Amino acid sequence: MANVHYRIGKSVQDNYIELVERKGIGHPDSLIDGIMEEISRELSKKYLDEFGVIMHHNVDKGLIVGGEAKVEFGGGVVEKPTEIYLAGRAVHEVEGKAMNVEGIAMESARKYLMENCRHLDVDRHVVLFPRIRKGSADLVSIFKNKGEVPLANDTSFGTGFAPYTPLESVVLETERYLNSKRYKDEHPYVGEDIKVMGLREGTKLKVAVAAAFVSKHVESLKDYIEKKEGVFEDIKKFISRMYDDEFELFINTGDDYKSGSVYITKTGLSMEMGDDGEVGRGNRANGLITPYRKMSLEAAAGKNPVSHVGKIYNVLANELTRDIVEQFDFVDSATFTIVSQIGVPINKPMNADLEVVLSKGYNLEDVRPKLNYVVEGWMENITEITERIVYGKTTVF
Amino acid sequence: MANVHYRIGKSVQDNYIELVERKGIGHPDSLIDGIMEEISRELSKKYLDEFGVIMHHNVDKGLIVGGEAKVEFGGGVVEKPTEIYLAGRAVHEVEGKAMNVEGIAMESARKYLMENCRHLDVDRHVVLFPRIRKGSADLVSIFKNKGEVPLANDTSFGTGFAPYTPLESVVLETERYLNSKRYKDEHPYVGEDIKVMGLREGTKLKVAVAAAFVSKHVESLKDYIEKKEGVFEDIKKFISRMYDDEFELFINTGDDYKSGSVYITKTGLSMEMGDDGEVGRGNRANGLITPYRKMSLEAAAGKNPVSHVGKIYNVLANELTRDIVEQFDFVDSATFTIVSQIGVPINKPMNADLEVVLSKGYNLEDVRPKLNYVVEGWMENITEITERIVYGKTTVF
Amino acid sequence: MANVHYRIGKSVQDNYIELVERKGIGHPDSLIDGIMEEISRELSKKYLDEFGVIMHHNVDKGLIVGGEAKVEFGGGVVEKPTEIYLAGRAVHEVEGKAMNVEGIAMESARKYLMENCRHLDVDRHVVLFPRIRKGSADLVSIFKNKGEVPLANDTSFGTGFAPYTPLESVVLETERYLNSKRYKDEHPYVGEDIKVMGLREGTKLKVAVAAAFVSKHVESLKDYIEKKEGVFEDIKKFISRMYDDEFELFINTGDDYKSGSVYITKTGLSMEMGDDGEVGRGNRANGLITPYRKMSLEAAAGKNPVSHVGKIYNVLANELTRDIVEQFDFVDSATFTIVSQIGVPINKPMNADLEVVLSKGYNLEDVRPKLNYVVEGWMENITEITERIVYGKTTVF
Amino acid sequence: MANVHYRIGKSVQDNYIELVERKGIGHPDSLIDGIMEEISRELSKKYLDEFGVIMHHNVDKGLIVGGEAKVEFGGGVVEKPTEIYLAGRAVHEVEGKAMNVEGIAMESARKYLMENCRHLDVDRHVVLFPRIRKGSADLVSIFKNKGEVPLANDTSFGTGFAPYTPLESVVLETERYLNSKRYKDEHPYVGEDIKVMGLREGTKLKVAVAAAFVSKHVESLKDYIEKKEGVFEDIKKFISRMYDDEFELFINTGDDYKSGSVYITKTGLSMEMGDDGEVGRGNRANGLITPYRKMSLEAAAGKNPVSHVGKIYNVLANELTRDIVEQFDFVDSATFTIVSQIGVPINKPMNADLEVVLSKGYNLEDVRPKLNYVVEGWMENITEITERIVYGKTTVF
Repeated sequence: MANVHYRIGKSVQDNYIELVERKGIGHPDSLIDGIMEEISRELSKKYLDEFGVIMHHNVDKGLIVGGEAKVEFGGGVVEKPTEIYLAGRAVHEVEGKAMNVEGIAMESARKYLMENCRHLDVDRHVVLFPRIRKGSADLVSIFKNKGEVPLANDTSFGTGFAPYTPLESVVLETERYLNSKRYKDEHPYVGEDIKVMGLREGTKLKVAVAAAFVSKHVESLKDYIEKKEGVFEDIKKFISRMYDDEFELFINTGDDYKSGSVYITKTGLSMEMGDDGEVGRGNRANGLITPYRKMSLEAAAGKNPVSHVGKIYNVLANELTRDIVEQFDFVDSATFTIVSQIGVPINKPMNADLEVVLSKGYNLEDVRPKLNYVVEGWMENITEITERIVYGKTTVF
Repeated sequence: MANVHYRIGKSVQDNYIELVERKGIGHPDSLIDGIMEEISRELSKKYLDEFGVIMHHNVDKGLIVGGEAKVEFGGGVVEKPTEIYLAGRAVHEVEGKAMNVEGIAMESARKYLMENCRHLDVDRHVVLFPRIRKGSADLVSIFKNKGEVPLANDTSFGTGFAPYTPLESVVLETERYLNSKRYKDEHPYVGEDIKVMGLREGTKLKVAVAAAFVSKHVESLKDYIEKKEGVFEDIKKFISRMYDDEFELFINTGDDYKSGSVYITKTGLSMEMGDDGEVGRGNRANGLITPYRKMSLEAAAGKNPVSHVGKIYNVLANELTRDIVEQFDFVDSATFTIVSQIGVPINKPMNADLEVVLSKGYNLEDVRPKLNYVVEGWMENITEITERIVYGKTTVF
Repeated sequence: MANVHYRIGKSVQDNYIELVERKGIGHPDSLIDGIMEEISRELSKKYLDEFGVIMHHNVDKGLIVGGEAKVEFGGGVVEKPTEIYLAGRAVHEVEGKAMNVEGIAMESARKYLMENCRHLDVDRHVVLFPRIRKGSADLVSIFKNKGEVPLANDTSFGTGFAPYTPLESVVLETERYLNSKRYKDEHPYVGEDIKVMGLREGTKLKVAVAAAFVSKHVESLKDYIEKKEGVFEDIKKFISRMYDDEFELFINTGDDYKSGSVYITKTGLSMEMGDDGEVGRGNRANGLITPYRKMSLEAAAGKNPVSHVGKIYNVLANELTRDIVEQFDFVDSATFTIVSQIGVPINKPMNADLEVVLSKGYNLEDVRPKLNYVVEGWMENITEITERIVYGKTTVF
Repeated sequence: MANVHYRIGKSVQDNYIELVERKGIGHPDSLIDGIMEEISRELSKKYLDEFGVIMHHNVDKGLIVGGEAKVEFGGGVVEKPTEIYLAGRAVHEVEGKAMNVEGIAMESARKYLMENCRHLDVDRHVVLFPRIRKGSADLVSIFKNKGEVPLANDTSFGTGFAPYTPLESVVLETERYLNSKRYKDEHPYVGEDIKVMGLREGTKLKVAVAAAFVSKHVESLKDYIEKKEGVFEDIKKFISRMYDDEFELFINTGDDYKSGSVYITKTGLSMEMGDDGEVGRGNRANGLITPYRKMSLEAAAGKNPVSHVGKIYNVLANELTRDIVEQFDFVDSATFTIVSQIGVPINKPMNADLEVVLSKGYNLEDVRPKLNYVVEGWMENITEITERIVYGKTTVF
């Protein structure tokens, strides 16, 4: 492709400082990302069933207004439900055939919450308030013809990289470990609202985990301290297996044992006590916030997976670079950046940019054809990204 | 009791004209009455469990904002869910012990809808939006001491009568018949939104039934007409068994076969197509609207059953007069009216008034002691009304 | 007219007991009535401007969810604004020409509140939340042809009477006196939320006034007591001029001087402290609640003034009976009751009923032609009622 | 300072590609940023007045749910108002002294919209729905002692740079030019919703402007085309004065003259037609989106300006680097990145990082003391950032 630039880049690993964050599945920003993405996926499937194509929608404006709770060891009570506003636009009707978009949105949100938040009683702890307006006629037309590569809806930008740095892996995997079914089954007192921050100075890591505990599984302050220490040891062991160099671990640093103020919740979710969330304020499409890298501000969750070029390009960039580093041992790391051209098919970007770090002994000119082959393959099959998104085969937050 | 007046009244039956209406269980005004009353009852039970007394609450401000639906024979679709606002005030916390009032409200509303609306998919067709504020400190105090007769919260008024006139019975029972489990099982195409209007001119009745049909059980206009005619015959037979004189029956008079506009709904409920509802706008506590009789404007549904004198007096007046006509053959009909005195125990009304129509040969002076005995019995045990309400042993709409 | 019945009735005045209530202009139920009626009137005018006819609308589902306030002598603060939900249905668009119905609703509500609530800062004390859905196509069609008498939309009922009994006059006029511009200018400390209850036992009246005081104009408990006593004397004098017999007056009986709990408000409105309101729960169309008389449950405020037969018939019955008692000295009192026939022009009721009490020496047969002449005149010009409503020449609450 | 690192960085200018975006003042994402920031500033001032200190608040969760409009040359109509949800948390009460937080929020939002959107009729075009919950007790305590440097509330990150690259200047200034009072006075047909995208390939710029036109000032398609061409020429001239090299300009590329679909609006704002907005989804604190640079995802708008370290550090980094490049001619560009340490005073960061590009002939070791002097000065007076924010002397979006 003419407008793809290939360059030798610089490894993030070479910076003295690296900062990485992951807002876990139960963090309000991730929760609302997850809900709105679930709604988009369900709508996409329903549109396919009803109309044979995915109709226009961007349900990417979700808002969690946290509730009120009074928590105590052994229990406590949610005093005021959390309100979740489900907003955006979607096609409600095609040629006289209508769909209950807001109803599907509520149902999907309920389902998502029930599947992902073990201690949340959706009927009593959550108010769902859908505000999904009809899509404008203009935007609808993008999808008229099946099979075609859709046109870019905007001048937009996506970026992605592979592989994760050690710090990135540590941050990402630590949250996944703590939120895994297996860990939860054995440690029911660990809630879903988990945030992991990682800082690297040179080779030394500092990892801070904030994990909501579930009050009904914690009898007392003493019990809390013991369980927290247990979790601390579990994480320590887990990271040790991944990372050989020195690291420091912190957990729930806001706790104040003297005043008895510790991080316990009724539902395992901080939103119960007023923590708000908004789509697009948390993890990027690869699951992380990486301020020392190039990042897109795109809020991917809830965007339509057919023509929303910002969403597609971010997912594409992640998938493409992962493919490259998996296929080619000589590529130590890759970063792909791609800019769309409004009104032009999304596989004809205005500009794309592949930065690679090559293993010693390799040079760009030699490997360029190989790289190009992979890049062109992805561009040709760009509509597969849509499928991956709809069927949940890739992450968007 | 000193301030109870006994009088000989006049029978409504003697009026040339009588007008009676019943908004059936699925009518939006009744539905929101039912929801808010269910919430009050559930709150009462939870308060009893938690605090040993029913705390102050008046959740009598409910609003249904109807949705949008596109209905067709054989199916159709709800396009926009109905919004239900659950408003009022309630004690959320006593001495540091809190209760999830809004959560209980949502859960009760869901439960009520699921139990009473067979074709409603609550997850997709309904948005529940609770707005229940904290009760003011003043009002809370009314309930401080258990066992005591509570003080009247207001200068308020209740009225009730027994027995039903033939027209009243016809109107009430026709709706109950059509909404009975048995009838529904055999005629699943009849929805819950049923309104019955009855007019009597002399001895001739005109009864108009508006009954929502359920689209998925109606294949075509022809099928609709046949089923409607079947229902018409059923009602005719039903009324014939109750009423000997002449009557005319109308059903779904708004239907226009030419344009194909007939009363079918997706959910059996007109709220799906924009019909709104508000607490207190439908049936009085005895289940009817009877403009030719004395009526209270009190919206009983959702009011607290302990000290809300308007609610209690209306229920009391119904129960008391029923008791009198059941006990005493010589009482043809009775109407009881009672006015409270703010700040005084509710069994010490400012004024009460029992009007009776006696059988030939009886006079008031002779039967007054008997009547008085019953009235005083009810006043002494007035707190039983609370129990009847909480445990659903009486109607409030 | 064939189906108008003329009868000799009974005077309410002859009952030993009479109970009358007026919820003043600032009572939450009246406030929301006033707001929704203002919206209907503004919409009607805008429809006339835009389309030449008043399009279908029924914006009669308003809900006030009271706020929170902390009031103290000399001031205090509104802590949480009152929420006002403006609901119902209205035509938004005719033949491609659209109107901002919800915008007009908000603007009308603001205007109404600013004009009627001197101490309310609408920008800071009130949240307006419009939920006005589109009218269904069916209902729209009622208005298609100008000039015609519209068809009744329902089997509905209206009733009215004249003149007011002495108690009714006292109750109505006392509120109007206290809420008059003149009284307010001289007594700025009296708020708009005023409720008057009147009870008559024989000839003796008991009048209870609940009037919110405005905190910034009341320095201390002492000042409150003095001002309240002043108001008490004013009312006493006022009623004395209207009523010759004995009466007892009560004002703010809920006050408790010991605990310092008295009826002061920041805004002159109890809704600031959580009092809720709903359309149709307060005064009937003649401005009063009169449980010892025949009453319609119709919520007139916000209903469309063209074809909503319940609204029109209630206003008509009031206007017609006033006309009769003004024209004919021999009519001591009159009550008119009228029932519509769905789908038939509203000036062809199913049934109407004029009950009169005649002066001594008159009998019904002699005066019937005169009465009939007036009744027929009103029926012929029934569409004037619409105009009276739209241009505010009659009350609906 | 010990933990500040000084490094020689790389100029963004050296990248072959550069991409920059600015969402103008009327873009929904900027509008909600502006509203929530205005609310934070007004609350801050009110807290200072009432309590002498700025109390805790984070009103950074705003949501715009776009309305519906039907626009035509010469006019059109807003059909459904835009809904704006104002969410977050704030202290409502201190030691019994309360503040109407939601009222202040609504008032500030109104004021902001009226000042910044000339063609918006706030009363009719906007619904404001405040959802600001009480701050939790814990967070309140951060502000207890005046004068002290507050503790970091989180492990957070800020970054900023100076000066703007030529492309950045072009993008930023073009929007400001089009939204200047002067330009608007002369070209009233240009709305406030303006988005500028800039792409640099080598030295060549492509600048795409999307600017909403105001329908009442545009008579016809012909008029639109002429006016748009006029604006095009204005911008071209404007950029030419700033940028010597080649550039291409695009304006409203989505227009389709054939179908007559062009970018006109009733209010000058795309939110009228359903475009939604959320806090933190638009410009970074320096007014731009610069994906080829290090960026913070922090949503600064609405965050409290006292202890919210993410907000403060981003503003600080911008101010500090501007100061450095202004003071020192030998610094061509600077980027500052700073990471907080939860629970530690915000002027004791965990880590900070100053990257500079020095003019030829300078080396880092020589200039380090000078740089350090400036950095330390800013850290010592870090609380001045709060003041700059509260009094509007710096931008946050």
